[in-house]
Amino acid sequence: MSDPLRLGIAGLGTVGVGVVRIIRQQAVLLEARTGRKITISAVSARSRGKDRGVSLKDYAWEDDPVALATRDDVDVFVELMGGEDGPAKAATEAALKVGKDVVTANKAMLAINGQALAELAEAEGRSLRYEAAVAGGIPVIKALMEGLAGNEITRVMGVMNGSCNYILTRMENSGKTYQEIFAEADGLGYLEADPQLDVGGIDAAHKLAILSAIAFGTKVDFDGIQLEGIERVSIEDIRAAADMGYKIKLLGVAQKTGRGLEQRMQPCLVPDTSPLGQLEGGTNMVVLEGDAVGQIVLRGAGAGEGPTASAVMADVCDIARGLRLPVFGQPATSLQTSTAAQSQTPAPYYLRMALVDKPGALAKIAAVLGEAGVSIYRMRQYEHDSASAPVLIVTHKTTHAALRDALSNMDKTGVMAGEPVALRIEEL
Amino acid sequence: MSDPLRLGIAGLGTVGVGVVRIIRQQAVLLEARTGRKITISAVSARSRGKDRGVSLKDYAWEDDPVALATRDDVDVFVELMGGEDGPAKAATEAALKVGKDVVTANKAMLAINGQALAELAEAEGRSLRYEAAVAGGIPVIKALMEGLAGNEITRVMGVMNGSCNYILTRMENSGKTYQEIFAEADGLGYLEADPQLDVGGIDAAHKLAILSAIAFGTKVDFDGIQLEGIERVSIEDIRAAADMGYKIKLLGVAQKTGRGLEQRMQPCLVPDTSPLGQLEGGTNMVVLEGDAVGQIVLRGAGAGEGPTASAVMADVCDIARGLRLPVFGQPATSLQTSTAAQSQTPAPYYLRMALVDKPGALAKIAAVLGEAGVSIYRMRQYEHDSASAPVLIVTHKTTHAALRDALSNMDKTGVMAGEPVALRIEEL
Repeated sequence: MSDPLRLGIAGLGTVGVGVVRIIRQQAVLLEARTGRKITISAVSARSRGKDRGVSLKDYAWEDDPVALATRDDVDVFVELMGGEDGPAKAATEAALKVGKDVVTANKAMLAINGQALAELAEAEGRSLRYEAAVAGGIPVIKALMEGLAGNEITRVMGVMNGSCNYILTRMENSGKTYQEIFAEADGLGYLEADPQLDVGGIDAAHKLAILSAIAFGTKVDFDGIQLEGIERVSIEDIRAAADMGYKIKLLGVAQKTGRGLEQRMQPCLVPDTSPLGQLEGGTNMVVLEGDAVGQIVLRGAGAGEGPTASAVMADVCDIARGLRLPVFGQPATSLQTSTAAQSQTPAPYYLRMALVDKPGALAKIAAVLGEAGVSIYRMRQYEHDSASAPVLIVTHKTTHAALRDALSNMDKTGVMAGEPVALRIEEL
Repeated sequence: MSDPLRLGIAGLGTVGVGVVRIIRQQAVLLEARTGRKITISAVSARSRGKDRGVSLKDYAWEDDPVALATRDDVDVFVELMGGEDGPAKAATEAALKVGKDVVTANKAMLAINGQALAELAEAEGRSLRYEAAVAGGIPVIKALMEGLAGNEITRVMGVMNGSCNYILTRMENSGKTYQEIFAEADGLGYLEADPQLDVGGIDAAHKLAILSAIAFGTKVDFDGIQLEGIERVSIEDIRAAADMGYKIKLLGVAQKTGRGLEQRMQPCLVPDTSPLGQLEGGTNMVVLEGDAVGQIVLRGAGAGEGPTASAVMADVCDIARGLRLPVFGQPATSLQTSTAAQSQTPAPYYLRMALVDKPGALAKIAAVLGEAGVSIYRMRQYEHDSASAPVLIVTHKTTHAALRDALSNMDKTGVMAGEPVALRIEEL
């Protein structure tokens, strides 16, 4: 039997408490599986007095996470504070520099500072693990980095922010507006303190940036992501999409093209019969595509005490078992600098517009699309009482550039009543 | 840079050729990810002359897999011959005994001889890996053994035989009988040389036995599985189940109960809106449930050259990266002997029967069910022209024992026209 593996845990929110609970309750199981006792030496959080529903009296307390991270009786620093820099990054760096392994759930820190931290960890010969940073309990980092290691990855996709998927699903099921459901979700405590991290797509984009780096052997490049949140998704679009057989999801997509790495996080339409289309509420789903394996779909809880703590414990168990890998699956110094490519990959698009209700209006729009090389796959005009006619179009595959030209020319026809909505349809 | 990792591959069917192809085509990628060149020293198969569409001239040839497995220039023996014993087992044992690691796709060998092989591998300090043995390209062994290592696993379920799922899906979509679709699938080459391995549920049960051992820390116990194939699933049941909102799947379920380990592989009803219910054709799905993580669903191709070779390469890459684990996730000598429990876990049941068309028949059946403590959740009697009336019943949760009593008493009422069909409904 090896020596115990001793943890220092910084951050005692939901996830931190979940980790403490697993270590206390599953001691026998963890020892059977890893061959070592897993213990907690010390903990740290902002407020010492708070009742967290779990006993901390056996553990030393540190006010300063850097002091915690560098304690002699800590082998693994477990960083659950969050934040792309500040104390989380300082303590992570301090831990690595004195030869500790680090496990974190911090997607922002990895997405923004992942390259530097990976280089530091590898120079020190330590592990920096982050299964909990992407898609909660779904073991997607392991699936991609190890399970599909024999594949050239062709595309990575995912619905990776449960709050956004909850809002979009609730809008569809209730018929209420974005603003109404946003207020409801916020009241239920489903959103981050800064809700823009959720609804602006930033949190999900952090996760996509991490997956991209592993999938394509590139330096994590959060700034290269084409990013659009769900704030502008209207109940009209959700209804119209449903009518055409689609759901609207905040979907992250990363794929390598001849021009560079395309990374998009934006509201997309997906077929309502596809696994992504059928994903309701706060559940997460990641789709991994490889040249040999084809398509692998992973589904599970993307947040919450148990699922996220489960992912943290997967990393802790790997370290206890002596399983070590480069941070992004290959040495950080060998990762390529990716060229961020604006999306040129053709896709069908969904267009919703209102046309002035006079003869020839629809013909003009159809002509403009044709001139821009955008061909129409399906079109519907709805009955209406007002002076403008609602029209839905699903195009054949086209590039974003061709579509932009068409939209710009539509504006000049004089038959548009208001701004059209254009959303990408992601093929599965 | 470490020394190359040198493989000896025995078995050059679809999967073996897929592995050779990945190693030839993805040499750069594999070296970047594992830090080592991965090479093939020698190969072996039954027929040397056959054109397999891939060049083998760079590799030594061995007629005898044992000779291949023990060559000095082989670090990892890749066993892709199949068969629970015979040459596959002999060569695996020989490889382990001379200090080689082994990667195999052989579910039968693991399900029948896994305990002895695991003890041998661990005594020799070698790896015995088998990601490809369960659910093809889905990295389910890794997800369960490593990704959910912090969980007490509560239930493992899966549709793990693509041929059976293809047959059941085709029956539903075509309205044809089992016999017709069986002949069609056989003609298309979708079935094993001995089709009983597929349609009798044996292949899927091999996989379930392997997952159970990892999930519950028990010795692999194929004989403890309650096993029933799909041969008796009728088109009438598929139609009736659909009418009640269910699909029929050959579903494997393993769960630990107070009385021991329940392992079932049998046709079950699942809700048609659930991920399992929506699984069409040859695709596989595994559902893993843990106390912390909740439910994780994994979906992907369960067979075929690329997907299965992808899984073999995941194991090869793990070995190249120096990642070593006990064969079933904890030392083989520490695995418990499981008590095979007949299913006592209550479940709803689906009953289809024909009743003699005379007053009071239905009342008698309802009374018999009530007396056995089986309560009715839903019942439908269909219009009919014949002398017997088709009746469907979905019960509330009941035990298999109570249901058996009820069925036996029904037989004595004199109102049954023929044998009733009873199928378990698995709750998700």
